[in-house]
Amino acid sequence: MSPAAHLLNTPHHDGSSRYVSELHPRLGETVDLLVRVPHAADVGSIHVRTTPDAEPKFTAARIDRSTATDTWWRVPVLIHNPVTNYRFLLQGGPLGYQWLNGTGLHDRDVPDAADFRLTAYDAPPAWSDEAIVYQIFPDRFARSAAADARETPDWAVAVAWDEPVTGRGPLTGRQLYGGDLAGIAEHLDHIADLGVNVVYLTPVFPGRSNHRYDASTFDAVDPVLGGDEALADLVEAIHARGLRILGDFTTNHTGVGHDWFVRAQADPESEERGYYFFDGQEYAAWLGVKSLPKLNYDSEALAHRVFDDPDGVVKKWLAGPNGLDGWRVDVANMTGRHGVQDRNAEIARRMRAAMAQVDPDSLVIGEHCHDFSLDAMGDGWHGVMNYAGFTRPLWTWLRHPGHAPDFLGLPVIVPRLGGRAVMETMREFAAIIPWSTLTHSFNLVGSHDTTRVRSLVGDDAGQVDVAAGLLLTMPGIPMITYGDEIGMLGEFGEDGRRPMPWDAPREAPLWDERIHDVYRGLIAARTESVALRAGGLRWVYADDDVLIYLREHPEQTALVHLARLGHDPIRLPLAALAGIEGGSAAYGSLVRIEGDEVVLAASGPEVGVTTWTSPA
Amino acid sequence: MSPAAHLLNTPHHDGSSRYVSELHPRLGETVDLLVRVPHAADVGSIHVRTTPDAEPKFTAARIDRSTATDTWWRVPVLIHNPVTNYRFLLQGGPLGYQWLNGTGLHDRDVPDAADFRLTAYDAPPAWSDEAIVYQIFPDRFARSAAADARETPDWAVAVAWDEPVTGRGPLTGRQLYGGDLAGIAEHLDHIADLGVNVVYLTPVFPGRSNHRYDASTFDAVDPVLGGDEALADLVEAIHARGLRILGDFTTNHTGVGHDWFVRAQADPESEERGYYFFDGQEYAAWLGVKSLPKLNYDSEALAHRVFDDPDGVVKKWLAGPNGLDGWRVDVANMTGRHGVQDRNAEIARRMRAAMAQVDPDSLVIGEHCHDFSLDAMGDGWHGVMNYAGFTRPLWTWLRHPGHAPDFLGLPVIVPRLGGRAVMETMREFAAIIPWSTLTHSFNLVGSHDTTRVRSLVGDDAGQVDVAAGLLLTMPGIPMITYGDEIGMLGEFGEDGRRPMPWDAPREAPLWDERIHDVYRGLIAARTESVALRAGGLRWVYADDDVLIYLREHPEQTALVHLARLGHDPIRLPLAALAGIEGGSAAYGSLVRIEGDEVVLAASGPEVGVTTWTSPA
Repeated sequence: MSPAAHLLNTPHHDGSSRYVSELHPRLGETVDLLVRVPHAADVGSIHVRTTPDAEPKFTAARIDRSTATDTWWRVPVLIHNPVTNYRFLLQGGPLGYQWLNGTGLHDRDVPDAADFRLTAYDAPPAWSDEAIVYQIFPDRFARSAAADARETPDWAVAVAWDEPVTGRGPLTGRQLYGGDLAGIAEHLDHIADLGVNVVYLTPVFPGRSNHRYDASTFDAVDPVLGGDEALADLVEAIHARGLRILGDFTTNHTGVGHDWFVRAQADPESEERGYYFFDGQEYAAWLGVKSLPKLNYDSEALAHRVFDDPDGVVKKWLAGPNGLDGWRVDVANMTGRHGVQDRNAEIARRMRAAMAQVDPDSLVIGEHCHDFSLDAMGDGWHGVMNYAGFTRPLWTWLRHPGHAPDFLGLPVIVPRLGGRAVMETMREFAAIIPWSTLTHSFNLVGSHDTTRVRSLVGDDAGQVDVAAGLLLTMPGIPMITYGDEIGMLGEFGEDGRRPMPWDAPREAPLWDERIHDVYRGLIAARTESVALRAGGLRWVYADDDVLIYLREHPEQTALVHLARLGHDPIRLPLAALAGIEGGSAAYGSLVRIEGDEVVLAASGPEVGVTTWTSPA
Repeated sequence: MSPAAHLLNTPHHDGSSRYVSELHPRLGETVDLLVRVPHAADVGSIHVRTTPDAEPKFTAARIDRSTATDTWWRVPVLIHNPVTNYRFLLQGGPLGYQWLNGTGLHDRDVPDAADFRLTAYDAPPAWSDEAIVYQIFPDRFARSAAADARETPDWAVAVAWDEPVTGRGPLTGRQLYGGDLAGIAEHLDHIADLGVNVVYLTPVFPGRSNHRYDASTFDAVDPVLGGDEALADLVEAIHARGLRILGDFTTNHTGVGHDWFVRAQADPESEERGYYFFDGQEYAAWLGVKSLPKLNYDSEALAHRVFDDPDGVVKKWLAGPNGLDGWRVDVANMTGRHGVQDRNAEIARRMRAAMAQVDPDSLVIGEHCHDFSLDAMGDGWHGVMNYAGFTRPLWTWLRHPGHAPDFLGLPVIVPRLGGRAVMETMREFAAIIPWSTLTHSFNLVGSHDTTRVRSLVGDDAGQVDVAAGLLLTMPGIPMITYGDEIGMLGEFGEDGRRPMPWDAPREAPLWDERIHDVYRGLIAARTESVALRAGGLRWVYADDDVLIYLREHPEQTALVHLARLGHDPIRLPLAALAGIEGGSAAYGSLVRIEGDEVVLAASGPEVGVTTWTSPA
C-alpha cells in the first residue's frame, strides 16, 4: 500500500467551540460558524446551506482572518428550528463547487444525513462535559464482609470469589459471587486513583439473575447488594469524593418476577395488565426471552408510574443529596417500539423531562448498538452508547489477526481492517448526530456485554494501549468497564464478568500493572488537557497501521498519534501545525521536528499526545 | 480518464419485483428477498440484516438457483414494523465481509440511511404505476374562443398569445395570456398523440397572479379559466379518453386575498385568525413574501376545513366521476413546519387519508427540492417531485459547458460533471427512500419553476434526446412540462412559461418536430415495455459521457444506453446479458453483438433501449 496523503490541506469545520460560537444556542439566537480553509485548497467563496422549515437557504460567508496557512471564513446562522442542519458550499477548484459536511468534501450533491447539526435543546449537565466513566457490575467488583451474613436467594448458586465464571451454561446467570455496594464503597480509592470521575452501576434492583436486568421491583435495592441503605451510603461516599454516580434502568422490560407482571398475569382486569403486551396468556418479551416481558407505553398509567410519579423509579432514585446523578437506559433502542407502535422519541423526551424536574443536573444515556441517528438528536437521551461509531471500528482495527471475537451479534468474525476504514466509519457515524450528542455519548472499548479488549487484541498487550489511547483522546465520554484497566480477560460478555482480583499478584494475566499505568496516564492526560476534553476532531492521517488526528480547542490543540504496529516516519508540514514547536508531551513521547516537518514514527504499538497553545 | 469498469460482476438487489416477492406487503406478512451474485464475486454466504423494533437481526439466505453466470440467494423477511429497512451481509473475499445496500457494496460498517426499505402502507393507486404526466400551466397552454369575452381582472395585464413573456420585471406575475380550461380540452389530441396518460394542472383557483399559487379561494375555479363548469367539462373529456388529471393545492399558504386571510386580518377574534401565524399585525409568509401568508395547522379548525370537510378543498375536487384523480402539493416540504412546529408528517398522512375516503384510487405527490428522505417514507405523499435525485444530477451531466442556468436556488452555476457523479448521486438519493416512493415520484427534466431543458443543453439539441431518454427509462413517474416536447426555450421558471405556439411552423426554435418525435418515440417505448415501466434499476456502466443501466422485470429486461457525446465502443460480456441476442430495439438502434461481447458505441448524443425476454 502506498503512503496515504495527510489531510492538513483540507478545509475543515466541526461542532466544537473552535468552529462554533455557541454550542448550546436557544431558538431565535444567531450562531457564528467558522470554516478553516488551508491556502492550498482552491476556494474562492463559501456559503452555508441551512434548511429552515425544510427549505434550503444559502448565506454567504465572509473572510474572518487569514493566517500563514489558512483563511478562516465566518458566517452567521439563525437557530430557527430545534434542529438546524447545515453544510458548506465551497466555490472554486476544477469542478466549480464542493460540499463540506460531516464526512468531508464531496464533488457532487449529497443528501442531508451527514450535515452538521446544531440543536436548541437544553444542554447536557456541565459535569458530563468532563466525565470519564467507570462501569461496575455489582456482583463482581468487590465483596464486603457483610456479604457473608446474607442468605443466598433461591435462584442463585453462591460461588467463591476466585472461582472461574461460567461463561455459557446453565449457571451463567445464576453464579452469585456476592459483590455488594459496601464492597464498592471500600474500593473507592482504586477508582479515585485511576482518575475517573463517574461510577456507573449496572442494575441494583433485585431480580432473579446475577445481572439484575430482570427486575422484580424498581422500588428497592437488592438486599443481596445491601439494600437501599447501602446505596445511599455509597452515593454519599462517592459524592464526598467529588465523583458522580449513574444507575441503570430497563425502560424496555421488567423481569417475569416483577410485582407488576405478577399482578398483570394473575388478573386480566388489573391496571398492570395494560403495562405489557398480552395476547391471551401470551405476552411480548425482549427478543422473545420470556423471563423479560416487554413494557407497553400505550398505557398512560405505566408511563405516569415510571416517569411522573415522584416515587416512581426514574425520579425516586435521583432525588435528594444522596440520589443518583443520572441513568443509563438499557435497551433504549427498542424501548416503546413494538410493531406499529413507536413511542421511542416520546419516552426519551419524557424521561429526560422527568429527570430534569428532580435533578436538572442529571444525565441520561441510552444503550444503542447500531445506527442511532433517529434516536440521538438531543431532545431525549443526552447521548448513547457509541458501539456503532466507536467500539466496532476500533475492534476492526485492533482485533488480533488470528483471533476472532464475537462482534455484537454479527454472524461473521470481526474483520481486521486498515486505519482508513476506521477513520471513515468513525467519521460517518459521528456525522449523523449533533456534536453535542457525540460528545455526550459513551465511547467504550467493550462492556459487560462484549469481549474484553485485552482478549480482543490477542498476544500483543501493547495494543490495549492503543485502544485506551483512542478511548481517552476521542470526543465522547470514555466509559471503562471495571477490570479493563488491569487487563482483565474475557472472550465474550459473560466470560468477561470476572470478579475483580484484588488479591492477585500485580502482574499479567490477572492484574497487569503496566496496563493499569497506561490507563492512569491517559486518564490524567485527558483530565489535564482541555483539547482532549473539549476540542474538535480533525483527522490528519490514516493508513493501515496509523491514525493521526487533531483535537482543537480555542485555548489548546492536541495532536494524537496512534499506531497499532511500528511504521516508517510520517512527515507533516510544520507550518500547518503552528505552535507545535512549543508543545509538550501530554502522553508518550514528544513529536520530533526536523526542519519544516513534524515527524511521527513508531517501533511498535504507540500512543502519543502532544499539546500546545492554540494559535489565533 | 481511463475507461471505467462495468458493474455486471457486482452483486445486486433492488426493490423491484425481480428481487422482492411482494412490493406492497401488509404487516405480519413475510416477503422473500432475492440477491443476484455473479460467480465472479467471491461470496460464500449471505445474511439479511433487518432491525425489527430497532434491534439488528440477521437471517441467513439460501441458494435459490444457479445460472451460467449468477447465483441467486433467497431469504424471507417478516414485515414486523410499518417500515422494514434491510441490507445484506456478504461473506467471502479478502476482507471477509461486505455490506450490500442501496448505494452498492461497502467494505466497512455503514449507517442505515441507504438501507433498502419495504413499507406496509397502502399501495399507491395501480394506475400511477404506469403514469406519464403532462404538466400544464393553464394561462399558457391554449386559449379558447370563450376567453375573448372575459374581463381582465384588476391585477392582470392582458397580452396577446404571441407576445414574449416578461421573465423578470414588474409584469412577471401579471401578464395574462388568457389560456383556459376549454383551451386545454380543445387540444387533448395533442396530449393523447404524445402518449402521456395523466394531465397535471398547476393551480386553477383564482388568485392575483397568472400562476395562481396565491389562491383567494379554494371553493371555486377561476372564472378567467372558465370556472367550475369548465373544469368539470375538462375532467370529463380527459376521463373519456382514459386519461387522468391531477390538481395543484398549496397546503402551505394562501394568497393575501383569500377569504380566510381577509377575515383573519379584519377580526382578531375570528376562527380564521388561528389559521395563520399572526403576531399583532405581522404574520408569517412563505419565504417572507407577504402576499403568501403561511397556514398554521395548530388550528384544528383549519385542518378540519382543509382535509375532513366534504366541501373542503381536498375532498370536494376529487369527489364524483368528474373529480380530479389526485393532488400535487405545492411547497409540501415546508407545509406544517414553522420554528418549533413540525406537523408535516401528520398533515401528509391526514391529507392522504382524506383523499382515500373520497377516492381510494387517488394520488398525492409532494413538491420537494432537496433531501426528501424524512418526508417520503410512503405513509403520507405517495411520492415527491424528484428534483434532488433526478433533475439536478441530470442537469450536471447535460448542462452545456458554456451555458450556466440557474440551479434551483444554488448560489453557484450548475457544475458540469461526469456520468459517474450522476450515477452516484442518483443512486444515493434513490437509496434513502422506499422503492415504492421512488417509483411513484415525479422525475422531471425541468418544470414551470426552472430552466427549460432545451435551454439547458445549449446549441446541441441532440442532448435533449438524452435528457428525455433518462426521463422515460428511469424508475419513477416521468413528468413532462408542456412545451418541452417541442423544444420550448426558457432560461428560468418564468421565462419558460411561454404560450404554446400552436400556430408556429413545425421547426426549431418554436416547434421542433424532431424533438417532438423523440418524445413520442420514447413515451411509446415506455408504454410498450414492462421493463421500462416496472423494472428494477441495475447500473452497468458510467464514465464521463456514457451511462448504461438495466431495467429488470420478471418478464422482460431492458438495457438502456445514454451518451451525451460520441464515444469509443464499450464492450460488455454477452454471457452476463443472457437473452439479449434475441432482443429488439425498443428505441434507437439495436446493440451490436460481436463474439462473446455486446458492443455499445455512439457517434454523438445517443439513446438506445434494447429489450428482451428475461431469463430465469
